Amino acid sequence: MHTDDRAPDNAELARLAELGQQLRVDSVRAAAAAGSGHPTSSMSAADLMAVLLARHLRYDFGNPGDPGNDRFVLSKGHASPLLYAAYKAVGAIDDQELLTFREHGSRLEGHPTPRRLPWVETATGSLGQGLPIGVGIALSGKRLERAPYRVWVLCGDSELAEGSVWEAAEQASFEHLDNLTAIVDVNRLGQRGETRHGHDLDAYARRFKAFGWHTVEVDGHDVEAVERALGEASSTVGQPAVVLARTLKGRGVAAAEDKEGLHGKPIKDAEGAIAELGGERDLRIQVREPWEAGARPAARTGTPELPRWSEGEEVATRDAYGAALAALGTARDDVVALDGEVSDSTRAEAFAKEHPERFFECYIAEQQMIASAVGLAARGWVPYASSFAAFLSRAHDFVRMAAVSGSGVNVVGSHAGVSIGQDGPSQMGLEDLAMFRAVHGSTVLYPCDAHQTARLVAAMADLTGIRYLRTSRGKNPVLYGPDEEFPVGGSKVLRSSGEDRLTLVAAGVTVHEALAAADELAAEGIAVRVVDLYSVKPVDEETLRRAAAETGCLLTVEDHHEEGGIGDAVASAFTDGSPVPRLVRLGVRSMPGSASPEEQLREAGIDARSIAASVRLLTGQGVPA
Amino acid sequence: MHTDDRAPDNAELARLAELGQQLRVDSVRAAAAAGSGHPTSSMSAADLMAVLLARHLRYDFGNPGDPGNDRFVLSKGHASPLLYAAYKAVGAIDDQELLTFREHGSRLEGHPTPRRLPWVETATGSLGQGLPIGVGIALSGKRLERAPYRVWVLCGDSELAEGSVWEAAEQASFEHLDNLTAIVDVNRLGQRGETRHGHDLDAYARRFKAFGWHTVEVDGHDVEAVERALGEASSTVGQPAVVLARTLKGRGVAAAEDKEGLHGKPIKDAEGAIAELGGERDLRIQVREPWEAGARPAARTGTPELPRWSEGEEVATRDAYGAALAALGTARDDVVALDGEVSDSTRAEAFAKEHPERFFECYIAEQQMIASAVGLAARGWVPYASSFAAFLSRAHDFVRMAAVSGSGVNVVGSHAGVSIGQDGPSQMGLEDLAMFRAVHGSTVLYPCDAHQTARLVAAMADLTGIRYLRTSRGKNPVLYGPDEEFPVGGSKVLRSSGEDRLTLVAAGVTVHEALAAADELAAEGIAVRVVDLYSVKPVDEETLRRAAAETGCLLTVEDHHEEGGIGDAVASAFTDGSPVPRLVRLGVRSMPGSASPEEQLREAGIDARSIAASVRLLTGQGVPA
Repeated sequence: MHTDDRAPDNAELARLAELGQQLRVDSVRAAAAAGSGHPTSSMSAADLMAVLLARHLRYDFGNPGDPGNDRFVLSKGHASPLLYAAYKAVGAIDDQELLTFREHGSRLEGHPTPRRLPWVETATGSLGQGLPIGVGIALSGKRLERAPYRVWVLCGDSELAEGSVWEAAEQASFEHLDNLTAIVDVNRLGQRGETRHGHDLDAYARRFKAFGWHTVEVDGHDVEAVERALGEASSTVGQPAVVLARTLKGRGVAAAEDKEGLHGKPIKDAEGAIAELGGERDLRIQVREPWEAGARPAARTGTPELPRWSEGEEVATRDAYGAALAALGTARDDVVALDGEVSDSTRAEAFAKEHPERFFECYIAEQQMIASAVGLAARGWVPYASSFAAFLSRAHDFVRMAAVSGSGVNVVGSHAGVSIGQDGPSQMGLEDLAMFRAVHGSTVLYPCDAHQTARLVAAMADLTGIRYLRTSRGKNPVLYGPDEEFPVGGSKVLRSSGEDRLTLVAAGVTVHEALAAADELAAEGIAVRVVDLYSVKPVDEETLRRAAAETGCLLTVEDHHEEGGIGDAVASAFTDGSPVPRLVRLGVRSMPGSASPEEQLREAGIDARSIAASVRLLTGQGVPA
Repeated sequence: MHTDDRAPDNAELARLAELGQQLRVDSVRAAAAAGSGHPTSSMSAADLMAVLLARHLRYDFGNPGDPGNDRFVLSKGHASPLLYAAYKAVGAIDDQELLTFREHGSRLEGHPTPRRLPWVETATGSLGQGLPIGVGIALSGKRLERAPYRVWVLCGDSELAEGSVWEAAEQASFEHLDNLTAIVDVNRLGQRGETRHGHDLDAYARRFKAFGWHTVEVDGHDVEAVERALGEASSTVGQPAVVLARTLKGRGVAAAEDKEGLHGKPIKDAEGAIAELGGERDLRIQVREPWEAGARPAARTGTPELPRWSEGEEVATRDAYGAALAALGTARDDVVALDGEVSDSTRAEAFAKEHPERFFECYIAEQQMIASAVGLAARGWVPYASSFAAFLSRAHDFVRMAAVSGSGVNVVGSHAGVSIGQDGPSQMGLEDLAMFRAVHGSTVLYPCDAHQTARLVAAMADLTGIRYLRTSRGKNPVLYGPDEEFPVGGSKVLRSSGEDRLTLVAAGVTVHEALAAADELAAEGIAVRVVDLYSVKPVDEETLRRAAAETGCLLTVEDHHEEGGIGDAVASAFTDGSPVPRLVRLGVRSMPGSASPEEQLREAGIDARSIAASVRLLTGQGVPA
């Protein structure tokens, strides 16, 4: 096949059409072999994929890391048979592997993931995520790598109902991402029936145009028209472009074409369908070569000169985050930061001031903030995305899917807990520990002082998976020296004696309350141990078990709902089958209103006084006269 | 003041302007008294609020439940000083209460919530939620109540970056919600600087127009123009309308007007500012009377005739959900259902078929699905919103805020866990129990058979707060009879003897695996207890403690990540300070790929064989020869 820029001649057009049929046949075959999967959603997009593959995509399948490779994202991840059929057409996989689709152990999963396949940029399957993450990759290409590659995202029409798509559309046009081309397979049918706009391409075009995109409408089964449309879209300058293609679901097989009720089902008469499509073919496509792009310079990843504070100085951990992130950005040029329009509150503004070229303002669009981070991570950057902890819940599904991708992303949530004070419950992160603990392979950190924060911010950069750091709004005294080390998975024992009657396990703001309580109790002759559990996941099982063995009772204190947070993390340290000590919890049980930080902690029963009262109760001591 | 439809004369215009100034002055005073809050964001919208309040809103503040009341939502909830100043202007609160703003115990929280104030429809403060929830209220007015009232939503410009706003815009125009008027306070400045579009009203108008809205652009400080704009918007027929108002943040006080860096801060020189604004005023507004609307007929809330199955019949709990929901909808006409374009999978389609007038298709927009449910609940309906459990994470922030509202919403997540099989991890709910357990005041239910599902679906309707039900994709045998009762907070002991060496605690699909393991072990002479923990929150502490006391060891088995799910729920039953038994867990620890349901359960180590092997290990028994 031709792989140059000349208009295709009739023979080439015939070959493109043949390739489309081959992709359909192989989609039908893969799903038939699996007994499940989405052949009809693959068949609608087969001609789009054929033209993209044979004429536009520049990629070396033998070297997916080539910096000159285009990047392709299958946003409609359920159309994986089409993707795998394409891999076969380019020789990346063989026919035998194609037919392992959805089998246990196969790389060809129901929805593609980069954990298994080197040509997949990001896991898809939760709709409305491919375009947002494609925007992140395009941001890397345009703003950081300054590389010539193009990002192609194949979307479904149903998924355009997701708000995340419009967050992406807004960021793409605002950032003038003319290296990004979306292709929408408008096959009219969603999972359970017709979409809102059916085949009304204009409806989609109006929306994308309004959001600042160049739009091209096309018959998605006319390969010549598709060829021209992709050419027009990819030569658009100064703005992203979208090709809106009118297609038919199940195209090419009368029993399936444009029919409702066949989403996610193999074609019933696969043999008949294959015959109707003209039988099996074995076209091999030589895709275009990657762009000329110099090898990317190795990132400078030195040790940061972290900020230092005086012991006892009052510093908010969010301030320490901002300062440490700026320092990390100075030492390492692979570190980037993303903001959801609250960098003055999270203190990420410190990074923005020092490294504006590596700072990405995502405005109030937390899904897009995480998506951009995932896209940037896919290109080798080390992103730190921060917003209020409460608002990170907005991006929960993106965090979940980032874990499916195996993506390495740092997320930082500020304004944790009731201790933020007057702003009230809408602004309080009270579920964030639960949310991030439950993410596969995550790390969850919750520092209580400035030096600990700075060390953990730096340590996060070298971890894998989703790394979450929780910061606080208010100021607390610096407890640790600047050279103290805080290994992930560790903890710090801040008060300890041979007489300890109980162990207080706290993190973040409650460490300070626990220390005050311990000192008050010590004056009464009640010795208690205090553990600073800055690493919530992984949790320091050894120290907790030792404390349990030595003191017999652990009282956790957390500025978080009682479910899924520190209490649960501590309980999880005792699930090896050995006997468990007494485990008691203090956490936020009621719905807060507005009040000062001190009033909030008291009201929630997690301030020093409440802790001391609980300890007296648990140790059988009365309140001193 | 006039409250009729005639154009305002000069005196009236002057009074409107005065009212705007009063709202500014009172916003400044409230924030000054509190020492925090958002006066500048209130001042930009003060003239919009003045005209709305004095000329358009139809509302009886003495009877917020009047069915003829308009509904007002302050989407930019941080502008609460403006809202409370308006309450004072209409006589709903007095000046003394106004000055309790943000105090501990005051109804006037930093962000308004209906838990405390009867005139607030829904809690706001997480941006981009007011319009989506307003759409839900408007859906009730138009499609269910067929009432004449209008829904007014005052939005900020920054929050238009949230994708949820565009999910709402899409649903509103698709449903022809001409009873909905959005007013956008385009003050150019977000929290940390200029918004993407600054004062470019056309940019917003293009977007809303493309999404099918009527748009009106106006100078938001010209009360005559605002009056005309609100009139035009509210008389729009067949489509929703938005008034895009150009305003200045901090309007009226030179030191604050249109200045960056003053978001969320009281005006420094409050006295000077008040003087500059012309001093305190005490205008009292008589708002227009409610619409003529007959009293709403009391809902028919009979006992449903729930479907019945034969014992041992293989039924998926998702099928039971659909059938039970349809039956519930027949017995009760206050039950409504919402779908995220997967009703064929969740089986909510059974309800849609029988009660199409109470079924709301939200397409693939889970945030809007929950927002519509919250809006419908605010109008007294009992919504059931269902999607894949995995995709409910998309709406996490809406669920969180619904809890802040005290909203009563049923959420049902299907396709829970690895047991869905081939589709792979993107489609598997493995974090949903953690997410819903951590929601304040929530109920979390996870049935294992059809009759249990049906009973719980019916019981949910009468609970308060967020109720979550988790269903499974695959079929399992019916275990319980049709008349068995399943109190929320209870559990079922399915195997028990005086010889039990250990207790298996399971729910949903793992109940069946646990039973198979118990039977296998019984044949080897190892008696184990089996508890069906269908109520994950609240959890049946009594039964768990008894099992612990009698068998000494609890082994939890869950098709969910180990964090935040059933293992943590069981651990939470032992946090009263009494000694804890041995607690051991089996859950999903690795990232699944594609495989059959049976292979998935085995791979995750939560199938009968793995359970039996674990029990043998824990009880010190070898595998039988």
